[in-house]
Amino acid sequence: MIDLSFFNLVEDDLVKVENLLGKHPAGQHKAISMAVDHLVAGGGKRLRPTLVLLSARLCDADIDRAVFAAAAAEMLHTATLVHDDLIDGSLIRRGVETLNAGWTPAATVLTGDYMFARAAHLVAQADNVQLTQRFAETLMVICNGEIRQMFNGKPGQTDLEEYERRIYAKTARLIALSAEAGAILANAQNSLEEALRRYGEKIGTAFQIVDDVLDFVADEETLGKPVGSDLRQGLATLPVLLFLTSESDQRVVHDVLEGNHSEDAVRKAVQAITDSQAIEKALEAARRHVQDAKRALDRFPDTSYRTALLDLADFTVDRRF
Amino acid sequence: MIDLSFFNLVEDDLVKVENLLGKHPAGQHKAISMAVDHLVAGGGKRLRPTLVLLSARLCDADIDRAVFAAAAAEMLHTATLVHDDLIDGSLIRRGVETLNAGWTPAATVLTGDYMFARAAHLVAQADNVQLTQRFAETLMVICNGEIRQMFNGKPGQTDLEEYERRIYAKTARLIALSAEAGAILANAQNSLEEALRRYGEKIGTAFQIVDDVLDFVADEETLGKPVGSDLRQGLATLPVLLFLTSESDQRVVHDVLEGNHSEDAVRKAVQAITDSQAIEKALEAARRHVQDAKRALDRFPDTSYRTALLDLADFTVDRRF
Repeated sequence: MIDLSFFNLVEDDLVKVENLLGKHPAGQHKAISMAVDHLVAGGGKRLRPTLVLLSARLCDADIDRAVFAAAAAEMLHTATLVHDDLIDGSLIRRGVETLNAGWTPAATVLTGDYMFARAAHLVAQADNVQLTQRFAETLMVICNGEIRQMFNGKPGQTDLEEYERRIYAKTARLIALSAEAGAILANAQNSLEEALRRYGEKIGTAFQIVDDVLDFVADEETLGKPVGSDLRQGLATLPVLLFLTSESDQRVVHDVLEGNHSEDAVRKAVQAITDSQAIEKALEAARRHVQDAKRALDRFPDTSYRTALLDLADFTVDRRF
Repeated sequence: MIDLSFFNLVEDDLVKVENLLGKHPAGQHKAISMAVDHLVAGGGKRLRPTLVLLSARLCDADIDRAVFAAAAAEMLHTATLVHDDLIDGSLIRRGVETLNAGWTPAATVLTGDYMFARAAHLVAQADNVQLTQRFAETLMVICNGEIRQMFNGKPGQTDLEEYERRIYAKTARLIALSAEAGAILANAQNSLEEALRRYGEKIGTAFQIVDDVLDFVADEETLGKPVGSDLRQGLATLPVLLFLTSESDQRVVHDVLEGNHSEDAVRKAVQAITDSQAIEKALEAARRHVQDAKRALDRFPDTSYRTALLDLADFTVDRRF
């Protein structure tokens, strides 16, 4: 039984975040309103807003400002996914149609841009220049990471350092920002801000590793997309990298990484990886990151908010969705 | 002889703006650095930074902050052009290759996103929450305008109200923000901020009308793109709208608006419009906007900065480039 009670602690604030996300500025074209509603409703676990809110409560920051920052984090995350899905040609995410599945690339690009602007507008309302800067830097890191992968990445690249760099840019950085946001808003000591950032980086890393594991072991209905999607794109995630350092027969996996994307080839490669120790080893790595994350919170007083953040850290590896 | 001396007054500050635009944050991928340098170097007249700086001097704002805001305005403008050119499939702008001319759509989308983030980061360094919000709102207006055109616009739409709405979103809004930025940074009275915003809206409108006129009357070398580009895209700009209300034989223009984009058809339509009174009438409209813009500055003391802004207003219609 996974403990999800950490969400309850900020339930009322999360309602305010949803209201902000669903609010449409005057003059906004109805096509944008519909698209944003569709994307926000199809959104996931609200992990980033929950982190912002728990961090704000932990550091005793102004909650009204934190609600804006929480909505900004979710909006920024959703905006990056819009362009990602367009670039990858993904038609479905979390079981919901992507924007590019029904719209032209042009409309998809512009709607993503609009959502970046909305995210910037939301964070500006949190009324903290340092936080606004951090949001902009985070978007720079995310885009830079994707461009790096695009220009330097070779299909089937099997470099652990490159993998870590990629998941930092893709996932851990924004989760780290969400976790430190409360400390920034509260003008907390640097050491507390750094501790929360480290906590966020570590759970963000674990979260992405688990995502990469689920891409192999979850069923399609839970995933909301086909199993083995990363492999099919030539992306060597941690389970693949660990498999390739094992004693197992590696031919079926190399076959897919080198470009054979037939259903049969992908199925065999997924099977070989799930039959190996690679999945368990990847989860062990994720658990180590979670332990590091939890240790980073040692310096905070033992409040219900700290407990919630510890539970949330466990959730990132215990989840099956 | 066009008086360009208004640029001289802020020459030293503009050098600082260029330095900021050319600065590459640590860790930025070299592909991005090259792209940004190419785009910034291919940039135009630095109208927006000049406006921010003159407005800041006029209102006695902190110039270091204004330099950040000026760089942000230029970066935001350039970023929007990156996605515009991708969407329109334009291969050349101001005589310089667009990013999408040599890059994949994916790399172009991401580089544009990165530049939005850089713009947000630059404006955050101007350390003024209101200005940061205004920048975000402006990007929302720009994207909203393009999406509106995409979903509501019919090729050859001949609605003057829609034209005005379009050029406000496309051009006048960011120029208005540039003009009012100094007042915002200086915490000037609302009435002064409004006066500068009105000035900016008016010269922005004039500027776009003149752009639309030059698309008919300038030579390709000066334009840096083919003559009649707008018409070819089915875009009815002010000269076209005025032509269509005239007594002239309108068949050649309707022919192109309805989809005949052969070189011969476009050439004939451009000829018919340039031979008519439409060009002069459009310029008259632009001049009226400039007069309104200049009147908006009446309430400011008669300083060299006010004179420069008046000269800049004249420049928007007197320019031939």
